[in-house]
Amino acid sequence: MKRIGIVGGTGYTGIELLRILATHQACDVHCLTSRSEGGKRVSELYPWLTKYKNLIYEDPSIDRLLDCDLVFYATPNKLAMKEASVLLESGTMVVDLAADFRFSDIGIWESTYGGTHESANIISDAVYGLPEKNRSSIQRASLVGNPGCYPTATLLGLLPLVEADALSCTSIIVDGKSGTSGAGRIAKTNLIVAEASDNFHAYSASKHRHAPEIQHQLERFGSKVSVTFVPHLLPTIRGIEVTIYVSTTLTAEEARQLYLIRYSAEPFVTVVNDASIHPETRWVRGSNRCIIGVYQQHPGELIISSVIDNLVKGAAGQAVQNMNLMLGFDETEALPLSALNP
Amino acid sequence: MKRIGIVGGTGYTGIELLRILATHQACDVHCLTSRSEGGKRVSELYPWLTKYKNLIYEDPSIDRLLDCDLVFYATPNKLAMKEASVLLESGTMVVDLAADFRFSDIGIWESTYGGTHESANIISDAVYGLPEKNRSSIQRASLVGNPGCYPTATLLGLLPLVEADALSCTSIIVDGKSGTSGAGRIAKTNLIVAEASDNFHAYSASKHRHAPEIQHQLERFGSKVSVTFVPHLLPTIRGIEVTIYVSTTLTAEEARQLYLIRYSAEPFVTVVNDASIHPETRWVRGSNRCIIGVYQQHPGELIISSVIDNLVKGAAGQAVQNMNLMLGFDETEALPLSALNP
Amino acid sequence: MKRIGIVGGTGYTGIELLRILATHQACDVHCLTSRSEGGKRVSELYPWLTKYKNLIYEDPSIDRLLDCDLVFYATPNKLAMKEASVLLESGTMVVDLAADFRFSDIGIWESTYGGTHESANIISDAVYGLPEKNRSSIQRASLVGNPGCYPTATLLGLLPLVEADALSCTSIIVDGKSGTSGAGRIAKTNLIVAEASDNFHAYSASKHRHAPEIQHQLERFGSKVSVTFVPHLLPTIRGIEVTIYVSTTLTAEEARQLYLIRYSAEPFVTVVNDASIHPETRWVRGSNRCIIGVYQQHPGELIISSVIDNLVKGAAGQAVQNMNLMLGFDETEALPLSALNP
Amino acid sequence: MKRIGIVGGTGYTGIELLRILATHQACDVHCLTSRSEGGKRVSELYPWLTKYKNLIYEDPSIDRLLDCDLVFYATPNKLAMKEASVLLESGTMVVDLAADFRFSDIGIWESTYGGTHESANIISDAVYGLPEKNRSSIQRASLVGNPGCYPTATLLGLLPLVEADALSCTSIIVDGKSGTSGAGRIAKTNLIVAEASDNFHAYSASKHRHAPEIQHQLERFGSKVSVTFVPHLLPTIRGIEVTIYVSTTLTAEEARQLYLIRYSAEPFVTVVNDASIHPETRWVRGSNRCIIGVYQQHPGELIISSVIDNLVKGAAGQAVQNMNLMLGFDETEALPLSALNP
Repeated sequence: MKRIGIVGGTGYTGIELLRILATHQACDVHCLTSRSEGGKRVSELYPWLTKYKNLIYEDPSIDRLLDCDLVFYATPNKLAMKEASVLLESGTMVVDLAADFRFSDIGIWESTYGGTHESANIISDAVYGLPEKNRSSIQRASLVGNPGCYPTATLLGLLPLVEADALSCTSIIVDGKSGTSGAGRIAKTNLIVAEASDNFHAYSASKHRHAPEIQHQLERFGSKVSVTFVPHLLPTIRGIEVTIYVSTTLTAEEARQLYLIRYSAEPFVTVVNDASIHPETRWVRGSNRCIIGVYQQHPGELIISSVIDNLVKGAAGQAVQNMNLMLGFDETEALPLSALNP
Repeated sequence: MKRIGIVGGTGYTGIELLRILATHQACDVHCLTSRSEGGKRVSELYPWLTKYKNLIYEDPSIDRLLDCDLVFYATPNKLAMKEASVLLESGTMVVDLAADFRFSDIGIWESTYGGTHESANIISDAVYGLPEKNRSSIQRASLVGNPGCYPTATLLGLLPLVEADALSCTSIIVDGKSGTSGAGRIAKTNLIVAEASDNFHAYSASKHRHAPEIQHQLERFGSKVSVTFVPHLLPTIRGIEVTIYVSTTLTAEEARQLYLIRYSAEPFVTVVNDASIHPETRWVRGSNRCIIGVYQQHPGELIISSVIDNLVKGAAGQAVQNMNLMLGFDETEALPLSALNP
Repeated sequence: MKRIGIVGGTGYTGIELLRILATHQACDVHCLTSRSEGGKRVSELYPWLTKYKNLIYEDPSIDRLLDCDLVFYATPNKLAMKEASVLLESGTMVVDLAADFRFSDIGIWESTYGGTHESANIISDAVYGLPEKNRSSIQRASLVGNPGCYPTATLLGLLPLVEADALSCTSIIVDGKSGTSGAGRIAKTNLIVAEASDNFHAYSASKHRHAPEIQHQLERFGSKVSVTFVPHLLPTIRGIEVTIYVSTTLTAEEARQLYLIRYSAEPFVTVVNDASIHPETRWVRGSNRCIIGVYQQHPGELIISSVIDNLVKGAAGQAVQNMNLMLGFDETEALPLSALNP
Repeated sequence: MKRIGIVGGTGYTGIELLRILATHQACDVHCLTSRSEGGKRVSELYPWLTKYKNLIYEDPSIDRLLDCDLVFYATPNKLAMKEASVLLESGTMVVDLAADFRFSDIGIWESTYGGTHESANIISDAVYGLPEKNRSSIQRASLVGNPGCYPTATLLGLLPLVEADALSCTSIIVDGKSGTSGAGRIAKTNLIVAEASDNFHAYSASKHRHAPEIQHQLERFGSKVSVTFVPHLLPTIRGIEVTIYVSTTLTAEEARQLYLIRYSAEPFVTVVNDASIHPETRWVRGSNRCIIGVYQQHPGELIISSVIDNLVKGAAGQAVQNMNLMLGFDETEALPLSALNP
């Protein structure tokens, strides 16, 4: 059994890693850290994670992590960059679920997240963990920057067009919507049921950190574009939907065929083959799937709707998918394929 | 007291008309019809409408409506067009909450709704009931086509730009989101809590009837544009938000000032004067207000977020606002200004 | 116009007082205090309360309150008791929405809330503000303890039985359920959408402060009983439902008639006259109404279901109802009768 | 691989059987019938059940079912009783998720469900499928009546007390609350989001079919009691909570220890060992678990709160648990242990 470490195991991505890894046949959670809950049992804090009756949160300690084969950082930004070098040098692989290793260009990272990157020397070794694009690099990687939730939904929604060089205009509009778990397990008045349920609104309409990530990765895919990205807060627990507006010379039917072919072998991407059917976030609730539909109202434009579960394909599930590739396991091991629905 | 008739008073727009008119000082509901519930008391079907203890649903009858000063059609499309002429000839005013009288061009109506318009001769007399644009015409009108919910939010979000001739590109993208009450009081599996709560998806992404209405009215406002409109279903009871993407030469600040000035005297439109604040649908829950914010990510483009309560400013509230203008009452009479929040 | 003060105007009961008083014909909000938001405009914090464009939160100051005719304390427990005496002496009436003046027996208050009551000498002057029971006393009162939300729903559900001396056993079981706004406008992880929506659970099943209040008032009504009260948290914004299980010698039909007669003249209490219809919390959303149904499964027992909006009849609405009585206005002035539904 | 048949595979219990069986190592869904959807692929109707790309709904046919090792009836009441005898005679086992085989006393069944039972001769062969009580009988059974959702939560909440003969009064009050999926996948106006979300109410307060089932099983367990059962509709997708009020001579602590010991070896029952913690429905979302807490307010009474997922431990999960016992598999095979949370 491979020994897995999880740093920051009390937030939603940490909890979701525990849920998914509970059924993994070849991995054990060897070390689970928390700055606030050290000494407590997992099942005490999260009674529904019944597999982990004897797993106890530890105070953060690099020594314990060095004893792992692979460590997930389910932490805020700028924590993984402090420890990744040490772990990698001693042979421990790293998957960072935050943004420290998502950019190959240090300047974009700095202008987006501010401050100085403490592991600038290794960011060129990091692979952007989108398996549908970078599978073989991930299989050879020791350090993976796990994609953001909105970028995952958006990039999978654009990948076939970009690879086919079928965009006819550099301007891309991404109208994103995310469930509240995307904001994290955090006590904020604007997230309580009395305020955030039966409600909807845009946020960060002037600027959001995921726009540079989307734009940077599209450029690495070979497409120089300008991305306008407006996120909105859904009154749901999970789920992201992005509606993408692009210009192309393809008809909707040509585009749909392009997508169907591109993703035909992908275990976690489904393309809706019917212009009257639209992907729903509940279709991916709890599963590691991305479902994509393609539509058109006027010649020359294309509308793409892409849905994922922000905590699974948008975070912990994709992280385990990357881990499976890095450690040589079956890519789908332990990853939920069916959604919980209703 | 003016005598008001409501045709089709059992759906959500009919119920909402009853809720609003309950506090009107100068109107009485004189006749309330229903094809299915004739003979029942309002308070029997809707125990929360306690004012109407003695009001009884009647079977539809033109004679009873002729006895009213003004009749609301809170019915499906293609019903008002059958009776409007007779009512108007006898001096009864008509406000149609459906789409029969929203188009001055019969061809657009026919291509959008199909079939033959049974009152084609009077559609040129009908005024599009958006008071912020057509106030004086509405004051003189006997026949008003009450705007659709998405068009109301969208047109109010674009009106200052269009009037200032500040659009620099003819392509407009409208990403709309509506609560489930927009689908009506109707038993459909896709609307039940187990399917539609904790869920989100686009619908009619290839074609929706509100796109031609938006485009037609923008043209009547003087702007020849091409509208791409994608609606989405929110897991909420009420509320519409539209995020509109346009090209303009204005800066965000210039645009914001334009909006603030344009709407400064409007009793039901509020402009957010802060780029970090975004209108929320709960801020208009139950009220007749539209709240608009203006944002920018790249020079040359503009992002507008506009929210309304689809049943109030998007339907029954705007209909009463039109009625107040048509009958010479204070425009705000009986119309909720404060939202129910939380 | 009477001058009204509101102490603690930023919580949900304070906001709700503002919403309701916005339409009051004979009162103005003269002074609105907040410990945290002093200097800010109401419409800046709560953009949907559009009436109060010029009302500004003040730092707490007894001088400003002395200038009011009546002051509402929409504060946590143990604040009104510090200032009530001074206000009363100078002729300013007081309605406390917290629990300081709900008990005529200081011992019960102390054992329930702990510590020493700082206005023990005036608690015998305070009237328990349940108009359906104490209307004439409230009309003569200067100091009213506004009932708790669960107690309001429960006491109205039991009043006819108690007054008719129709309880045959001293043991009463109250299974209560409340929407999340009952917990206040407070940032707690257990209240965020990701945790509290699509969820349900009991709380305080061993002990809750509203049980002594219910029991104490039932005793004052003349009924010596033992109350078992278990509250539960509903994944809703507003609404309380209590299901009460009692023993009685009445049949369901006899009990229903008793309730119908008892409440026939009450403007804010409705009794459902049909064993197949059950009160729903949405029927009272935003209104000051209590709706009650009476049921029976076995001879000798009775089941009562009672619903209110916890923020209206359970707090701010009932407080305004009490104010109307104290200041000699029409009891229903400004109080919403229709619910917002859907 | 054992061949499994599912009759009525388009409702929520049928879909949930498919979700759970998708990961079963020793069973295949061999035959799936639907009266309405014959000829359609599972993945066409339910795109999130991606395992069943090639499984097609068949028209109901006894011949195809005879070819199965075990058949689940995920149908309305009174369907399994028409075919069970034929299947059993040919060696096919039957688990009925409806109520046809939950009663050993034909009179109680007839008075509860009406009409004549078409398989009265075999009801004495049927085992009530509550493994925590009837495990060994289920292991030997060919015909199992799967318990109702409310009865499962209630009986597990009472079992230790009944077995210990610790009830001191025959009157039991069960206040039940269920998510909307308990009403089935059915288009009803009262279930749509605009009516049933942000809402709560009792239903069937005068009579509900699950009361006789609870009472009948408690009698078979050896306890002659009178059950008052009032169900309520929660605005959630899944989840049942029952709060049970009983009389006993045990203290809360004695009762808690009794429950902890009784269920210590049960894989799917967890007892909360802390009077300040209350089971939450989200803790069992999607899992086959029942979580129970024990509380006390007055000596002599006991309050029990019990939660399950109505579609899993309350239906499809328990059915698979029974199947595992009947076919000799590990009892926990394929059954979700962790909940989906948040």
